[in-house]
Amino acid sequence: MQRIDRNTRGVYSIAPTPFHKDGGLDVAGIDRLADFYDAAGVDGLTVLGQMGEAPKLSSAESLLVARRFVERAGRPVVVGVTAPGFETMRELAHEVMDHGAAGVMVAPPTSLRTDDQIVGYYTQVAERLGPDVPLVVQDYPLTFSVVMSVPVLVRIASTIDSVVMLKHEDWPGLEKITTLREAEAAGRAPRLSILCGNGGLFLDFEVERGADGAMTGYCFPELLVDVVASVAAGRRDEAHDRFDAHLPLIRYEQQPGVGLAVRKHVMVRRGILASATMRQPGRALSAAERAEVDYLLERLREREPAADLVA
Amino acid sequence: MQRIDRNTRGVYSIAPTPFHKDGGLDVAGIDRLADFYDAAGVDGLTVLGQMGEAPKLSSAESLLVARRFVERAGRPVVVGVTAPGFETMRELAHEVMDHGAAGVMVAPPTSLRTDDQIVGYYTQVAERLGPDVPLVVQDYPLTFSVVMSVPVLVRIASTIDSVVMLKHEDWPGLEKITTLREAEAAGRAPRLSILCGNGGLFLDFEVERGADGAMTGYCFPELLVDVVASVAAGRRDEAHDRFDAHLPLIRYEQQPGVGLAVRKHVMVRRGILASATMRQPGRALSAAERAEVDYLLERLREREPAADLVA
Amino acid sequence: MQRIDRNTRGVYSIAPTPFHKDGGLDVAGIDRLADFYDAAGVDGLTVLGQMGEAPKLSSAESLLVARRFVERAGRPVVVGVTAPGFETMRELAHEVMDHGAAGVMVAPPTSLRTDDQIVGYYTQVAERLGPDVPLVVQDYPLTFSVVMSVPVLVRIASTIDSVVMLKHEDWPGLEKITTLREAEAAGRAPRLSILCGNGGLFLDFEVERGADGAMTGYCFPELLVDVVASVAAGRRDEAHDRFDAHLPLIRYEQQPGVGLAVRKHVMVRRGILASATMRQPGRALSAAERAEVDYLLERLREREPAADLVA
Amino acid sequence: MQRIDRNTRGVYSIAPTPFHKDGGLDVAGIDRLADFYDAAGVDGLTVLGQMGEAPKLSSAESLLVARRFVERAGRPVVVGVTAPGFETMRELAHEVMDHGAAGVMVAPPTSLRTDDQIVGYYTQVAERLGPDVPLVVQDYPLTFSVVMSVPVLVRIASTIDSVVMLKHEDWPGLEKITTLREAEAAGRAPRLSILCGNGGLFLDFEVERGADGAMTGYCFPELLVDVVASVAAGRRDEAHDRFDAHLPLIRYEQQPGVGLAVRKHVMVRRGILASATMRQPGRALSAAERAEVDYLLERLREREPAADLVA
Repeated sequence: MQRIDRNTRGVYSIAPTPFHKDGGLDVAGIDRLADFYDAAGVDGLTVLGQMGEAPKLSSAESLLVARRFVERAGRPVVVGVTAPGFETMRELAHEVMDHGAAGVMVAPPTSLRTDDQIVGYYTQVAERLGPDVPLVVQDYPLTFSVVMSVPVLVRIASTIDSVVMLKHEDWPGLEKITTLREAEAAGRAPRLSILCGNGGLFLDFEVERGADGAMTGYCFPELLVDVVASVAAGRRDEAHDRFDAHLPLIRYEQQPGVGLAVRKHVMVRRGILASATMRQPGRALSAAERAEVDYLLERLREREPAADLVA
Repeated sequence: MQRIDRNTRGVYSIAPTPFHKDGGLDVAGIDRLADFYDAAGVDGLTVLGQMGEAPKLSSAESLLVARRFVERAGRPVVVGVTAPGFETMRELAHEVMDHGAAGVMVAPPTSLRTDDQIVGYYTQVAERLGPDVPLVVQDYPLTFSVVMSVPVLVRIASTIDSVVMLKHEDWPGLEKITTLREAEAAGRAPRLSILCGNGGLFLDFEVERGADGAMTGYCFPELLVDVVASVAAGRRDEAHDRFDAHLPLIRYEQQPGVGLAVRKHVMVRRGILASATMRQPGRALSAAERAEVDYLLERLREREPAADLVA
Repeated sequence: MQRIDRNTRGVYSIAPTPFHKDGGLDVAGIDRLADFYDAAGVDGLTVLGQMGEAPKLSSAESLLVARRFVERAGRPVVVGVTAPGFETMRELAHEVMDHGAAGVMVAPPTSLRTDDQIVGYYTQVAERLGPDVPLVVQDYPLTFSVVMSVPVLVRIASTIDSVVMLKHEDWPGLEKITTLREAEAAGRAPRLSILCGNGGLFLDFEVERGADGAMTGYCFPELLVDVVASVAAGRRDEAHDRFDAHLPLIRYEQQPGVGLAVRKHVMVRRGILASATMRQPGRALSAAERAEVDYLLERLREREPAADLVA
Repeated sequence: MQRIDRNTRGVYSIAPTPFHKDGGLDVAGIDRLADFYDAAGVDGLTVLGQMGEAPKLSSAESLLVARRFVERAGRPVVVGVTAPGFETMRELAHEVMDHGAAGVMVAPPTSLRTDDQIVGYYTQVAERLGPDVPLVVQDYPLTFSVVMSVPVLVRIASTIDSVVMLKHEDWPGLEKITTLREAEAAGRAPRLSILCGNGGLFLDFEVERGADGAMTGYCFPELLVDVVASVAAGRRDEAHDRFDAHLPLIRYEQQPGVGLAVRKHVMVRRGILASATMRQPGRALSAAERAEVDYLLERLREREPAADLVA
C-alpha cells in the first residue's frame, strides 16, 4: 500500500464518521463516503480526526472505521491516532498500518508550551511508533492551544525522520508556509509535505505560498481539488474565481463548534450521507442555520451550475 | 450631543489611530479619517478600541485622540475606556463624556469566568461610571477569553440601566442574536442595541438575525453601510451580492494579529491614512502579504468599479 | 454494595495505578494498595482519576483496575469514568457499577465556560448514566479550566438527583464551602457531600468550613483520617498540629506535573508500591528531587515517630 | 545609586501600595512601609508589581509611588514598568531610573507562546529601554500564561546584556534553578541573578538549589531574610525549622486572588499599614478568612515568640 512521504501532494479530505440516527456506526455509509471522495478526485483521505468524532468512538469502533475506509478507498488513508498514553497510540497506529493505512496523524497535548516540550513530545511519539510509521504533525493552535514556531518545525523535520507531513492550520499561517519553504530552499531544513486545514479558508493563497495541497473536510472536496490544480497550473485568476464562489459557504462551515454539523447537513443534501447525526455531546443545526446553509447552497448553484446538489 | 441608546442602529466604524512614521500621533490625520468616515456614510465612530491601539497610548494621548474625533466627526463617537482599575476608567470616561462622546465601551478582564463574575463586573463598572454614561459591553471571547451566555446578557440588560449596547463578536454568534431577540420579543428581556464586530465576516446574516448593524473596522466601511441598508430594505440577494464581492478581503483582514496592518495598508492605498505605521510592539505586513492584499484589491475593483481606490 | 450518597463523609483516597517497571499493569500490586488503604483507616477509595493515570489505560485495563480494587477493598470505591463521548462513559460506568462500584466521577470537558454549559453538561451526563449511578462532580479549575460558581453547584444539586457529591478542589476554595453550606442551611439548596482535593493543602480549614472530608491522594492517608477525625471531635489545635507536621511534604507533593512522581516515590519508600513507574508520557523524579523528598520524610519522622516508613 | 546586577543576592520584598480607606494613595504610609522593610533587614524592595496594584494606579501615581519608595528606602528599589506599549514603558522606566531606581521589572504579555516570541519580546524591550536600565524578567506562568524554558532563559541571558535578573516563580520550579546553574557552571550560559517568588512557598529548597534569594511579598519578610541567611551559612535544619513554622501562613497567603488581602490584613495587624484597603476591583477578606489568618498568627506566635505582632 502506498504511504505518505515528504513529497506527498494534493488534497486529502478529512472524512466525517457516518452515524445512524440512533448514534450507531453506519458502516455501509463508510463505503458510500469513500466512493464519493473517489469520484471527487481527491488524492487521499484522513479519518478519525477531530472532525471524524474520533474521541467519541470506542477503540473497537476506531479500528473498524479505519479498516473500512482503507479497504474501500482506492487511495492513501491517513488515520488519526491521538491518545493521552503512548501505549494506546502505538497499538492503534500499528493496527491501522497493518491494515494498509498510509500514515498516522498525532495532535499535540494541550499542555505543551515551550519549543523543547513540543519537539520532545514528537520525538517520543516517533520512537514509540517506530521508524516505519509515517507521521503527520497537526499544527492547530486554535483548537489545541499549542503554538509551533518555524524553528520548532525545522527541528522536527531535521531530527525525526518519520515525520513526513505538516497538517498546517495555524491562523494566521501564510507567512509560516513561506518561511518554512525558504528554510528548505536555503538548505537549513529538509523538505516536509505541507497540507493545509482551516476548512480551506485560505487555500487560494496557501498553495501559492508553497503548500502542497489541502487536508481539510470542506463539503465540496472537488473545489479543493480544482483550486490546487489551477494554482499548480498557473491559472491564478481562475483559481480565485472558483474559490471565491465557495467562500461564503467555506466561511460558514469554518465556525468552531458548529462546522461539523454544517458539513454533515450539506453532505446529506448532496446525497453523500444518509444522516447528519453526530454523537453526543454535540449540537445539531437550528432551523435558522439550516435555512442559511440552504440559501448559500442555492447561491452557489447559481454561480457553479456544475455543483452536484440534491433537491 | 447625541448619545447612543438601546435603539441605536446602523454602522459604527472602529477607527484606527493614525501615527506618523516615527510612531508619533498624527493629530491632523484624525481629521482626515473623520472626514472619510463622514463621506462613507457611517452612523457613528468607535475610537480607542483594541484596533485603535488604545493600550499603547499614554493617558494624555488617549484623551487627545478621543476629543479630536469627537470634535471633527459630525456623528456620535463611542470611546473605549477599558482599564484594569476603576478609577482610571472613571476618569477617562467622564472626561470624554464631558467633551461630547456618545458613550463608552468596556471590555471584560480576561480573568472573568462565571456568569456572576461577568454580571458583577459590569454592575460595578456601571456604578462607578454613574447613570449618565451609556455603556457598551464588548462580547469578544476570541480575544478576551470571556464567554457571555444569553442569560448573562439578559441579566445585564435587565439590571443595569446604563448598558445600552452589545458589541457582539462571539464566534459562532448567529444563534446568540436570535436567542436574544426572541427573549426580548417574549418579554423576558428589555431591548439592547446589538452591533456586530468580527470584521464583518458574518454581517450578511447577522442583520437578518436581528442585529442593528455593525461596529467594526473593515477598511471599506461603505460596504458595511450598503449591506445593512440592503438587508433593512429587504433586498436580500443584493445584500449578499455586495457582501460576497468583499468577502475575500474581509476574510484576509480578519486574521488575528495581522488584521490591523492589513487595514492600515488598504487605508493608505485608499488615501485615507498617510502612513500604515503601528506602534510597537506590532508587526508590519511582509512583501508577500502586501502583494496578496493588493491582488485582492485589484479583484475587488473589477467586481465593484465604484470602489474608491488610489492607483 | 454500599453506594455513596449526599451524606457520605470521611476520607476517600485517590489511589494511584501500580505499574511494573516495564509499564505493564501490576495487578497484584492493586491488592497490596487496597490492603494498605484498609489499614490506614480510610472510608473509601477513588480509582481511575487523573492521578490514577486513567487516560493512559486501555478500556480493558480500566475495567480490570476498577474491578480489582472493588473486589479487594472492603470499602466503597468511586470510579473515574470521564470520556469525550457519552457512549464510552456510559459503558464504563455501567460495567463498574455492575461490579460493585459505589459511584462514578466525571470531570468537565475543558471547553465548558458559561453556567448553562456546565449545568447542561452534567444534566446530559446524568441522563445518559441513568438515575441509579451516583455521580461525583469534579470541580478542579486549575487542571480543567472550568470554573463552577456556587449558583452552578446549587443548580446541579437541585436539579440532578443522581449528583450526590462534589469533589472540591477549587483554589482558593474555602469561601465556596461556606457559601454552599449556608445555602443549604437557608433552604436554598439541597445537601451535597463535599470531599476536598488539592492534595490536602487546605484540609485543616476545609473541614472546619463544613466539608465532609477529603478525596485526595496524599501519600500519608492516615494523616488525612486523623485531621478529619480531630476536627470532627472539636480538637482544633491537635488537628492543626498534626497537619502542620505534614505540610512541608503536602506542599511538595502538590506541585503540578511532578506530584504523582513524588507520591509514588514515597509509597515505594513506605513499602506500599513495588515500583514508582509511571506510564509515558510522564516524568520521573530527578536525583535532587528524590533527595529533597527523602529529607522531608526524615524530618517528618522526627516530628511524627509513628509515621510508618521503610528504611 | 546602587543598581542591581547579575550578582545581586538577598531578599527583595515586593511592597504593597498603601491606600487610605477611600482608595486614595497613602503617601505617608509609603514611608512607614519603607522603614519597616529597612528594620526587617531586607536587601531591597520591588514596587509597582502585580501585588503593588500597579495596573490600578494612574501614571502620575505610579511615578509618585516609585519616587517616594526610592527616596525613603536606604536600599535598592526595583520598579515594575510593565505596559502594553513600549513608549509608555520607556517613559516610566527612564523617569524612575532618573530618580534613583535600581532597575526595572517587565512581565511578558500573555499572548507570547513560542521561544522566539519570548526572546524577541525581551530583546525589543531592552532595545527600547537602552543599555543603562537593568532589567528583571518575570517568569510567572500561573499568572501570565507564558512558559519560559531554560533554553529561552539562556538565550536571554546570553544575548541581552541589560537583563540581569530572573524573578523566578515558575511552579514547579526547583529543577529550573538547578538546570540554569548547571548551564552556567558548564560555561553554556552567563550568570543571572535568580530571586524567587511564589510567596516563598518553596524558598527552603530554592536557595539550596542555587537561587540568590527571594523577591516576594510574604508578610513576614524577616523570615525570608532568616531562611536565605541560614541556608547560605550551611545551617540547613535551622533554615527548615524556621521556614516550617511559617509555612501554614505562607500557604494561606499564596492563594490566588485573595493573597494580597491576607498580606495587607497581617500588615495592619503588625502595625505596618494603616489600612488593608485595596483598590477596586478587588475583594476584601471575609470574617471567616480574617479569623483563620488570626488563628494562624496566634499559632505562629507560639512557635516564634519573637514574631512582632500587634494586639
